[in-house]
Amino acid sequence: MQDPRVDGERLWRSIMEMAEIGATAGGGSCRLALTDEDRRGRDLFARWCREAGCTLDVDELGNMFARRAGADSTAAPAATGSHLDTQPKGGRFDGVFGVLAGLEVVRTLNDAGIETRAPIEVVNWTNEEGTRFAPAMLASGVYAGLLDRDFALERTDEDGATFGGELARIGYRGETGCGAHRLGSLVEAHIEQGPILERHGETIGVVVGGQGQRWFDVTVEGQDAHTGSTPMPGRRDALVAASMLVQGVEAVAHRHAPHAVATVGSLKVSPNSRNTIAGRVDLTVDLRHPEDGVLSGMARELDGLARSIAAEREVAVDLREIWSKPPVEFDADCIAKVRSAARALGLPYREMVSGAGHDACQVAAVVPTAMIFVPCAGGLSHNEAESALPGDLEAGCNVLLHTLLAQAG
Amino acid sequence: MQDPRVDGERLWRSIMEMAEIGATAGGGSCRLALTDEDRRGRDLFARWCREAGCTLDVDELGNMFARRAGADSTAAPAATGSHLDTQPKGGRFDGVFGVLAGLEVVRTLNDAGIETRAPIEVVNWTNEEGTRFAPAMLASGVYAGLLDRDFALERTDEDGATFGGELARIGYRGETGCGAHRLGSLVEAHIEQGPILERHGETIGVVVGGQGQRWFDVTVEGQDAHTGSTPMPGRRDALVAASMLVQGVEAVAHRHAPHAVATVGSLKVSPNSRNTIAGRVDLTVDLRHPEDGVLSGMARELDGLARSIAAEREVAVDLREIWSKPPVEFDADCIAKVRSAARALGLPYREMVSGAGHDACQVAAVVPTAMIFVPCAGGLSHNEAESALPGDLEAGCNVLLHTLLAQAG
Repeated sequence: MQDPRVDGERLWRSIMEMAEIGATAGGGSCRLALTDEDRRGRDLFARWCREAGCTLDVDELGNMFARRAGADSTAAPAATGSHLDTQPKGGRFDGVFGVLAGLEVVRTLNDAGIETRAPIEVVNWTNEEGTRFAPAMLASGVYAGLLDRDFALERTDEDGATFGGELARIGYRGETGCGAHRLGSLVEAHIEQGPILERHGETIGVVVGGQGQRWFDVTVEGQDAHTGSTPMPGRRDALVAASMLVQGVEAVAHRHAPHAVATVGSLKVSPNSRNTIAGRVDLTVDLRHPEDGVLSGMARELDGLARSIAAEREVAVDLREIWSKPPVEFDADCIAKVRSAARALGLPYREMVSGAGHDACQVAAVVPTAMIFVPCAGGLSHNEAESALPGDLEAGCNVLLHTLLAQAG
Repeated sequence: MQDPRVDGERLWRSIMEMAEIGATAGGGSCRLALTDEDRRGRDLFARWCREAGCTLDVDELGNMFARRAGADSTAAPAATGSHLDTQPKGGRFDGVFGVLAGLEVVRTLNDAGIETRAPIEVVNWTNEEGTRFAPAMLASGVYAGLLDRDFALERTDEDGATFGGELARIGYRGETGCGAHRLGSLVEAHIEQGPILERHGETIGVVVGGQGQRWFDVTVEGQDAHTGSTPMPGRRDALVAASMLVQGVEAVAHRHAPHAVATVGSLKVSPNSRNTIAGRVDLTVDLRHPEDGVLSGMARELDGLARSIAAEREVAVDLREIWSKPPVEFDADCIAKVRSAARALGLPYREMVSGAGHDACQVAAVVPTAMIFVPCAGGLSHNEAESALPGDLEAGCNVLLHTLLAQAG
């Protein structure tokens, strides 16, 4: 069979069946990492993989590698996958689509009787969300050598349970060293979690990399004073100064359009009283750009902004960088295969950068990697109302199928 | 004796002795209304007044009227006074200075053997601060007919104790109807609680009235979204919109300089997460001006500002006026007497409007009233670090003495 196609209806049914595990009242799913719900999700995925003729390897951090054998058993596998854990009020598609799209590719190849040269593997990475055990993308980070294995095992949830203990409890602490399981390439399919594809009426995002990020904590200190008896001249209002910073941060992004984003998401006022001028404001700044040089420039502009506001408003502005992540560039050959697949299938596509972090962004450090995005309604994610169209998921899965066929030969 | 002067050292000692009741570790006082500390403060004041030859009348809301008899017992008394209750971490001067300055005037007249025509009275108004029983200026508000007596008696603190019950418990629920105790005039001395006198090197504020106030609650609703995967165009960031409002509110005040003040003191962000664009912000607006017409204009500008931001940023801005208080104009004759006293004493003075609310602002509705301000360090008040110079307090007390002498004849 020259031109196989996935079964979109079967893919949709599998996603809906997985969503029943930890189903929430609001129509989403709650399968926090290493809970009983996560175990049930893993068990279902493992059963489906076995039924599809796959063998399963589980590493010491619970990453699951389901393998469909190829003609050359020594060839490094062409892998795909994402994660089955969710946010506390997560949707049905975030992560799940990527794992089950990989399974659907295996099922399609089985139906069509196609044997690839290299094996094909479907991966379920442990604890992508990071909600129960911070940080996010934990096990893929260890796989990629970006985080330490013992660091991961010792993470605790808010009740004091450890990652390692919970992993053993649910029966998914394997023998294989994390990072030892060899992959030839990784292509992760995922919903976009942003509005760009939907806004442009495009079906496929050919993801060429992930944005770099810099996170800052900022404290603005002025002077508390009575709102009635303190004239405007001479006030040192920390909230007015902070407001200038909020708008200045937005302006930094606009100066580096179209790829830059910059946001103040959290802001706390003290004493936060109706009739007291704010003496202190604590806020956060999140800067992102796909190019490290531009990102550094944005950070310098933020620093200059903080200094000029401090001088102009006679407040102290303390700016602290708390986290920095360089941009990720995906593998040119992997990207080209995704692009070719989308083009061959006649699907409208756009090359884009991932705004969010993904397992693939971690694994890219050690394995040739790319991603495939499909639209999600209104760009909404990390929300029970997250939704995607069956036809878009099917299209993304077909791109994955043909990308993996090209990878596995 | 033609030109009596108060004893500044005695005044200071009395203020310091009162501050020992409910003294806080930070150097301030805590005498919340109708607590045991308030009772002890009242007892001390009552004892001092008796020792100074005064008779005491207590009304049904606990307002204390200490009377130094005049030659004409039928004449309405020339009154002064303020409040002895404090904020939880209050200073030593707010309210206390006004009450004990009145007492010092009585002591000075006794020492000088001066008999006035009309009686002189020193008033301690109950629950000016409103911290334990909201609202503030409660008993002076009832005296002035602005609030209902039963409303006041039924106010509860956070433990459910009522104003009426606590008043009886500490033994200060009198027989006289609130408002029935006749006053011929009222001149309240108070620390400024703002920086104006200090900034201009002036000793006396001749207070000509109180600002009008309008309080608003504002809700800005945009759309939560991921900070990484949501491009700048199309964002509906409630915090950016709220920041424009914060700065617009400041601009409203500047357009009506020098008397207008306008402040956003409280602002809460939702979901207030570092990597989520804010979907909602709730904030407060406090507008004040001594002229009602200007204040109404400021409120209209605020409304226009809210509308234009809503349109420009595609957010919903809901603006609700929750409280309105018209400006207070003090009595021209009372003001003239304060001004004459300051001038006769050779003290640098300024005519000014009170930014904060005071008992005198309430009583002005029914009694010819004015106020005398003295500087406080850095304009700081409602704070344990509140401070004032003994010389300034003495000067303010001398102005009060000569104003009361002019009133009482």
